[in-house]
Amino acid sequence: MFEEMVKKPASWLSGDGTSAGIVISSRVRHARNISNFPFPPVADQAHKEKILSLFKAALAKNSHFKKGNLLISPEVTDLDRTFLVERHLISPEFLQGKSFQGVFINKDETLSVMINEEDHLRIQALQGGLKLDECYQLSSQAEEELGKILKFDYDSEFGFLTSCPTNVGTGMRASILIHLPGLVLTREVDGVISKMTKSSIAVRGFYGEGSDVLGNLFQISNQNTLGKSELEILESISKVVAQVVEAEEKARETLFKDAKDQIEDKIWRAYGILKHARMLSSTEVMNLLSALRLGVGCGTINQVSLNQINEILVLSQPAHLQKYFNRQMDANERDATRAELVRLKLNGKGKSNASH
Amino acid sequence: MFEEMVKKPASWLSGDGTSAGIVISSRVRHARNISNFPFPPVADQAHKEKILSLFKAALAKNSHFKKGNLLISPEVTDLDRTFLVERHLISPEFLQGKSFQGVFINKDETLSVMINEEDHLRIQALQGGLKLDECYQLSSQAEEELGKILKFDYDSEFGFLTSCPTNVGTGMRASILIHLPGLVLTREVDGVISKMTKSSIAVRGFYGEGSDVLGNLFQISNQNTLGKSELEILESISKVVAQVVEAEEKARETLFKDAKDQIEDKIWRAYGILKHARMLSSTEVMNLLSALRLGVGCGTINQVSLNQINEILVLSQPAHLQKYFNRQMDANERDATRAELVRLKLNGKGKSNASH
Repeated sequence: MFEEMVKKPASWLSGDGTSAGIVISSRVRHARNISNFPFPPVADQAHKEKILSLFKAALAKNSHFKKGNLLISPEVTDLDRTFLVERHLISPEFLQGKSFQGVFINKDETLSVMINEEDHLRIQALQGGLKLDECYQLSSQAEEELGKILKFDYDSEFGFLTSCPTNVGTGMRASILIHLPGLVLTREVDGVISKMTKSSIAVRGFYGEGSDVLGNLFQISNQNTLGKSELEILESISKVVAQVVEAEEKARETLFKDAKDQIEDKIWRAYGILKHARMLSSTEVMNLLSALRLGVGCGTINQVSLNQINEILVLSQPAHLQKYFNRQMDANERDATRAELVRLKLNGKGKSNASH
Repeated sequence: MFEEMVKKPASWLSGDGTSAGIVISSRVRHARNISNFPFPPVADQAHKEKILSLFKAALAKNSHFKKGNLLISPEVTDLDRTFLVERHLISPEFLQGKSFQGVFINKDETLSVMINEEDHLRIQALQGGLKLDECYQLSSQAEEELGKILKFDYDSEFGFLTSCPTNVGTGMRASILIHLPGLVLTREVDGVISKMTKSSIAVRGFYGEGSDVLGNLFQISNQNTLGKSELEILESISKVVAQVVEAEEKARETLFKDAKDQIEDKIWRAYGILKHARMLSSTEVMNLLSALRLGVGCGTINQVSLNQINEILVLSQPAHLQKYFNRQMDANERDATRAELVRLKLNGKGKSNASH
């Protein structure tokens, strides 16, 4: 399964979809818990084992989940675990040396379910570009199918009950991964973020909660799930995203009006370094790809596609790199191999053409 | 004449010759003064005018100086003057708003004579690579030819008399322009320089006396001209140069042994930036060309020739740039045009193919 995944970029990396030049991906997840079991953080091993087997049984019964794989800890190696985090399929803390945790991933990676994470089930739909509605439909449908077999904890007053109070209610979170180099370069990003956080929107880094902003990539999601319907949440986040996309587009226009030479220079240098460097750290790649993505989005560079950029973004992460080249590497070796991979991918070549 | 010069790189930029990967160029100059005239720094206008006309007469009489041009101040514009400095044909202070100064330059720029600089005549031979003997022969022959017509100030005890006491004796200075990135990167360069200066060797920057070291390019020349014969001077400077070349080669070996990845990365990044940047300052170009030259010298890069690097080195200087594109430019415009020129030249294209 991993063999296949590393060769084939996830469908959300396609680089198409609405606002694909600015919005990298959309995601909707539903947190659900099964009635009469304690939440995972306080559940004992026997409870967790039972939850996992209930989920397995549900999978087996429902044709909706036919095409996919279920990975279960502790059978997942550290490298594979990191690979899944890099792929945005599991949260960073998940599967880390714990038993009876698992993750179901469908064939094209658009749908996944984490079992015994913070909640019994975390159902997630992930797609490229601005596709919150599609993600919502996918996640809702999976939730509905599972709900036909499993009985979810539901309170008529509060809604779905969850381990953390911020998820109570719809248990739904909608988020997008968005690229905001224009707002960062014009120094408007802090203002835009503080305006968002005031209206219950959370802004996070590349790997979600508590992670750093890398390559000017931000995750924007709804903060609360209580007291609003799913459609209200979707509508409010879509509205905010539209505003941010517009602000980013304006910032880019301003940049190209006021400092065209400097911006184009920055973009072309990033391209030149990516195409020729022999050592690249993952942080540097993220930053250079940011400039390159800006260049592709603004038409400065047309030798490279968003798909290529997205693929490099994912493949150049440490675990992907090691799985791609099928060997363990120390940091120094990774930097050299990462540079090799970036050159290959920018020249439009795959693994089979690599000379090493 | 300038039109032609800017289109055609000087012969010393060919990039061939012994140790051409390390020694950029060789130069020998003879300082001569004409008997019964005060030295230029203390001469009045009438004296200078006379010196100039004596030189003109000598040129006319001697077929050796047939093919070439004589430029005379104040007819030389500021831009042309800077152009000649950048071309290493005159010293930085020369022709600056003064009358009766002149410079003779032969067809292929291997031989030039400054008139009424610090001395009445400064005869200079300039060639690419390590060619001190050839330069010596060229300069000596010109000196001999001029000596047939003009009577030089000569003292049987001291030798040739010159304006500055450091030039008294042979009046000869032999120098090379040498590229020492290995010694700079291994931090051995200060030790090597201090060893040289102790043995009467002067080490200077790219534009000669008092100029900064740019792009790891150093000028090495003999300090004194008194008490030694010309051949002894040539021999001693050649010996020092051979030692420095050897030290540089060893330093490069060490670098490629101890930090191959880092060095190759530095080289390829320089190439990538030069090939793609949209804004380049002259200092940055010098530094990037230094890495590129190292890469070509060490076989890391074979897409570029030393000849191309030398041409870019000269053409990317402010006056060359403006004459090449045939328009006056401010610093910002120069940076953009310099980047354009560098891209053209690295793609092996000349002016005619430029799209701008």
